[in-house]
Amino acid sequence: MFINIERLKKNMYELAKFSDEGKGITRISFTESYRKGINFTRELMEDTGLITKVDSVGNLIGRIEGEDKDKSTIIIGSHIDTVPHGGMFDGTVGVLGGIEVIKILKENGYKNDHPLEMISFINEEGTASVPIGGTFGSRAMMGLIDIDADLRENLKKVNLSENDLNLAYRDPNTVKNYLELHIEQGRRLYDEKIPIGIVTGIVGIWRYVATVRGRSNHAGTTPMYARDDALLKSLPLIKGVNDITKELDKNLVGTVGKINVKPGAANVVPGEVEVTIELRELEVEMINKAIARIKDLIKKIGDTELKQIEAKDSSVMDRNVQLQIEKACQSKNIKYKYMSSGAGHDARDIAKKIPSGLIFIPSKEGISHAPEELTDWNDIREGVNVLLETVKLLDMERI
Amino acid sequence: MFINIERLKKNMYELAKFSDEGKGITRISFTESYRKGINFTRELMEDTGLITKVDSVGNLIGRIEGEDKDKSTIIIGSHIDTVPHGGMFDGTVGVLGGIEVIKILKENGYKNDHPLEMISFINEEGTASVPIGGTFGSRAMMGLIDIDADLRENLKKVNLSENDLNLAYRDPNTVKNYLELHIEQGRRLYDEKIPIGIVTGIVGIWRYVATVRGRSNHAGTTPMYARDDALLKSLPLIKGVNDITKELDKNLVGTVGKINVKPGAANVVPGEVEVTIELRELEVEMINKAIARIKDLIKKIGDTELKQIEAKDSSVMDRNVQLQIEKACQSKNIKYKYMSSGAGHDARDIAKKIPSGLIFIPSKEGISHAPEELTDWNDIREGVNVLLETVKLLDMERI
Repeated sequence: MFINIERLKKNMYELAKFSDEGKGITRISFTESYRKGINFTRELMEDTGLITKVDSVGNLIGRIEGEDKDKSTIIIGSHIDTVPHGGMFDGTVGVLGGIEVIKILKENGYKNDHPLEMISFINEEGTASVPIGGTFGSRAMMGLIDIDADLRENLKKVNLSENDLNLAYRDPNTVKNYLELHIEQGRRLYDEKIPIGIVTGIVGIWRYVATVRGRSNHAGTTPMYARDDALLKSLPLIKGVNDITKELDKNLVGTVGKINVKPGAANVVPGEVEVTIELRELEVEMINKAIARIKDLIKKIGDTELKQIEAKDSSVMDRNVQLQIEKACQSKNIKYKYMSSGAGHDARDIAKKIPSGLIFIPSKEGISHAPEELTDWNDIREGVNVLLETVKLLDMERI
Repeated sequence: MFINIERLKKNMYELAKFSDEGKGITRISFTESYRKGINFTRELMEDTGLITKVDSVGNLIGRIEGEDKDKSTIIIGSHIDTVPHGGMFDGTVGVLGGIEVIKILKENGYKNDHPLEMISFINEEGTASVPIGGTFGSRAMMGLIDIDADLRENLKKVNLSENDLNLAYRDPNTVKNYLELHIEQGRRLYDEKIPIGIVTGIVGIWRYVATVRGRSNHAGTTPMYARDDALLKSLPLIKGVNDITKELDKNLVGTVGKINVKPGAANVVPGEVEVTIELRELEVEMINKAIARIKDLIKKIGDTELKQIEAKDSSVMDRNVQLQIEKACQSKNIKYKYMSSGAGHDARDIAKKIPSGLIFIPSKEGISHAPEELTDWNDIREGVNVLLETVKLLDMERI
């Protein structure tokens, strides 16, 4: 059994038409373009024989019952929302690829034992104009959203209520497995010319803001000797984050991607600099080691305050599902490698509640979230075929 | 003859009432607060016996004729506009202090040989919401504004035309001297406890933007080895500007006050960084030396482009006027020092056309353009007394 890549390609290009104007694809959750994209996807699902619904927060769900009424569900999922001016593969390949898998199973008269569901989660990218957070739809379904006053206000702005969150909740015990196919958005598979990555886990994300304080002064009237320049003081910290990360472990990444120089004028000596530090790793002990060293450095610099602004735990993919993906690759004679994911996905949150698997395919030069995002159609064919085989292998399992 | 500091103090506090809401003084040119401040100042001038007018661009001019009809005019000037949330001394002390000088001369029955004028120049700060540039009023009067398409458009927004600029022009040959009293806005006089600075010149301002290029990438999926982080590459340049400046000359100042990290997100490896470099010095050769060394450094860093965005020549105060200010200090037994100015003032542009003098008084801790801006009333008294004596000494000159 093999998937029909020409049909999938056609659907991918059709869906790519639903975009705001400008470069690349802009299909942000809760916008008109997104609504049209969801309608198109829903029609595809119904043409495939799936019974569809949109749940209380906006997740699109297509379901096909299984032969055995008592068995729990296998869910295939991903998302069709994009960042502004993103690409046509991120998320989309997992949703339309999943629909293609179910279509092929039906066309071949395959009788699925377990119910199968295809879900397109809302606001995975978290770029909705209202800040309700990324992987919103999958977190809502897993009951992983903590509601505070800010979120309650923001939910109102996208016509959602706390009750809608509650209604979107799904008992994880009714689900056997979650499977997601996604582009890597990194360059490891591309560099090594390997079409399939079997993801072992998704790294945790720790974010900090270090506020380095100096004294703001007129750049013309303050002699060099009398300055306390916060930007100059922050330089060893920016360099240190890089050095410490490189020294500690090859899987650890540490980035200063944003710095805010205050007041930020050509003619004013910087009085304060906010340095945003991000660390990602599967192993929390490694993060702790890095942070301890960054704190030592900050003590040396002085006048600096470190504040944690985010701590997302890493997420581990189910060992059995990984093995089934491996078997699927072997049965199709497709090269693969085990790897971690540096980016977050819907699978991250779902894996906390449901045994999950995540299949990666290469991104050309690692480029993603950009109009130039590209995955070879041959790699997409391999990826969707592996997804197909994995669904069959999981469906064959007793439980 | 001595000025009346209590009267001046009262006028300073009265004028300080004309401000937008919020901390400090906000009296930006072309706003309602500014208009009210100008009306108050105009009334003060008229009470002093000055004949007033507001010229075509908005400069407030008060004039008192001299005994000798053939003599050219001595102008005292400064400004009453402020930056947002600035202080009550910057500019204002020169305008109200100048009016006090003329009032004292009149009260003492002094017969001025030369015509005297007191001018409050518009938009010295250049913080009008429409960008028409700082020291606008004085540059207009000296015919030093180059009109381009952008400026023509912006002038319209403040109800000014090219013709208004032409009408504001004043033949420099009709003016004998220009004199300005201003707070230092630096901390040299304050640190050395000297009440009077005789300004020798105003430093030139050279501004550059260095664009350092790397490759923007996902911070989670791009391993450390595969990165080309523009922010990391820019660090030696930021440090270098400081090191080079310190090494070359104690009067040179070099500042990186602004940096723009692109795209500037916590989870993206910086792809491009714009570093704004500002250099100030009286001597252009020193600037050239500094720039040559910065260029060497940039060559070493690579992938970096340097673009000049501003080059304001330094401006030299008239040697004779400096000597008359010195004599004034000596006659009143007031301590003084010769110094350069790191900040621009109306005197900078006027000195290019008219023999000019600039008198500094201390700023507490060098703080200015902030609500905490403060100058001791004793220092103000000394400064205005020196201004008074200098006007008399210049008025005694034959020409």
